[in-house]
Amino acid sequence: MVDATRETALVSEVGPRDGLQMAAGRMATADKLAWIDALAAAGLREIEVGAFGPAKALPMMADIEAVVAHALAIPGLTVAALAPNLKGGERALAAGVHKITLPVSVSRSHSTANVNKPPEAAVAELAALRRLCDARPEGARPAIEGGLSTAFGCTIEGAVAEDAVVRLAAMLAEAGADAMGLADTAGMAHPRQVARLVARVSAEVGPLLDGVHLHNANGLGLANACAAFEAGVRTFDASLAGLGGCPFAPGPSGNIATEDLVHLFDLMGVETGVDLEKLLAARDVLARALPGEPLHGAVAALPPKLRAVSGRAA
Amino acid sequence: MVDATRETALVSEVGPRDGLQMAAGRMATADKLAWIDALAAAGLREIEVGAFGPAKALPMMADIEAVVAHALAIPGLTVAALAPNLKGGERALAAGVHKITLPVSVSRSHSTANVNKPPEAAVAELAALRRLCDARPEGARPAIEGGLSTAFGCTIEGAVAEDAVVRLAAMLAEAGADAMGLADTAGMAHPRQVARLVARVSAEVGPLLDGVHLHNANGLGLANACAAFEAGVRTFDASLAGLGGCPFAPGPSGNIATEDLVHLFDLMGVETGVDLEKLLAARDVLARALPGEPLHGAVAALPPKLRAVSGRAA
Repeated sequence: MVDATRETALVSEVGPRDGLQMAAGRMATADKLAWIDALAAAGLREIEVGAFGPAKALPMMADIEAVVAHALAIPGLTVAALAPNLKGGERALAAGVHKITLPVSVSRSHSTANVNKPPEAAVAELAALRRLCDARPEGARPAIEGGLSTAFGCTIEGAVAEDAVVRLAAMLAEAGADAMGLADTAGMAHPRQVARLVARVSAEVGPLLDGVHLHNANGLGLANACAAFEAGVRTFDASLAGLGGCPFAPGPSGNIATEDLVHLFDLMGVETGVDLEKLLAARDVLARALPGEPLHGAVAALPPKLRAVSGRAA
Repeated sequence: MVDATRETALVSEVGPRDGLQMAAGRMATADKLAWIDALAAAGLREIEVGAFGPAKALPMMADIEAVVAHALAIPGLTVAALAPNLKGGERALAAGVHKITLPVSVSRSHSTANVNKPPEAAVAELAALRRLCDARPEGARPAIEGGLSTAFGCTIEGAVAEDAVVRLAAMLAEAGADAMGLADTAGMAHPRQVARLVARVSAEVGPLLDGVHLHNANGLGLANACAAFEAGVRTFDASLAGLGGCPFAPGPSGNIATEDLVHLFDLMGVETGVDLEKLLAARDVLARALPGEPLHGAVAALPPKLRAVSGRAA
């Protein structure tokens, strides 16, 4: 039960999408479903269960329709999916997901490398998906999120101008995005930058900016999450065991680990609805389903008595 | 050259003390000296070069006098040492170090486990060392720092009352400490706690509180460093490659990695005087001197072009 007097955060698990997209091994469909079940059982209320991409580019997502169908049967779960383009968005709409994220890179070079088109073309596809969505009956319209990739830096271009991030956010608002998130695609952000950029983009698009997607390549993922929370962000992508990253970001650019993020919120007294022990159990499910895949994260190695002592005392 | 318009931080390297105290292997004296030389060459202005403890408890510190003598010959370097008790403090005085840190645990159980006496007795030893120090000629008086261990939580007692930390800080000020630091001995702190406790202790003892000693067991070491800096702390203990931890804290409770901390400050535009590339070279010296010891830290694994892009752009 959520205590209304406490601060809250929504942890959006992206492991089945971002994690599996980058994993060396392939996960069987049955294992994906068991993993998603374990994640939902831990109390996660939103899971990005996969991507609707071309089978050639994303062979590990060939079973996405079956995965979505399974996830939609889990009571209370917001089923999210990534769509790299309009075509993927159409498939996501048909599959009945609750939330579709379209990535739009601030960096022109990354946009070309990632989705083979300039940022403006990606925004136009979001606008087209908006129209398709609005044509559907009420109650069958998923939320459309614009994910601003490389918002904090780009592996190809280096520093990314904050003005360009603000401009792109304004374009996404104009195109009809219901929500947007700032993504540290390459794991280059630092806390002051996060606080500043969240404030600037919020000043431009208001509560439409509600999320961050943080990587941990530079070791600052949790510091950045903390800065984003203090700056008002309430939706946080994370991946169990830090699985995932960016195919165009060399090096260890995994996502922030869901269990470490939940533990941080536990310590801070921020309500997530997630049970840390059950989340660690879901990690075991993942380890069995992807043998040999390196699992990251600090909290899984902590002796149980050292976990979230401050939160328990508060 | 330090730019006077920029914020600054002092990174105090504790690897030769905290790191070697916990390492599985023993480092030869010549290797210690080469490592300390490499650390100083990277621009570190303060190094805790060892501990003056009983040879039986700290056999890896048997060469501490030779190490101190070598370090004192490095121009511009503040040579610090840990003294677990008054006897160690007397030896440190005799050796001519610039700074002596006496650890004093807030947690009564940890105090017993770590130095075999209650906190009050440790404070009394600091007062006695103060008197010895003041009896020496001016110019031969090292700074005496009280290190408040378990300030953010204790592996044995769990949560530690903030009131007890504030009380102990007041006692240390009364006993004549020149400086004090808050130590997250078990790696249990979180950023809001750090900000709150720094503010409370600063309100009690003013600028005498100038440092933090942070571990990374829960993955929040850098987030806590960032919170401490924003709360006004300017001296940060760190250990190259995250070597070290606490013998009474089970699990992976290493120090924050010096190179990751310097990289964070580079990103934030905070001047440390440390050259990151030379620091990474010192890591190679360490790796050769302690083969088989696990080295931690995120930045060493980053491709060079992804390091501190934001700081370079600022």
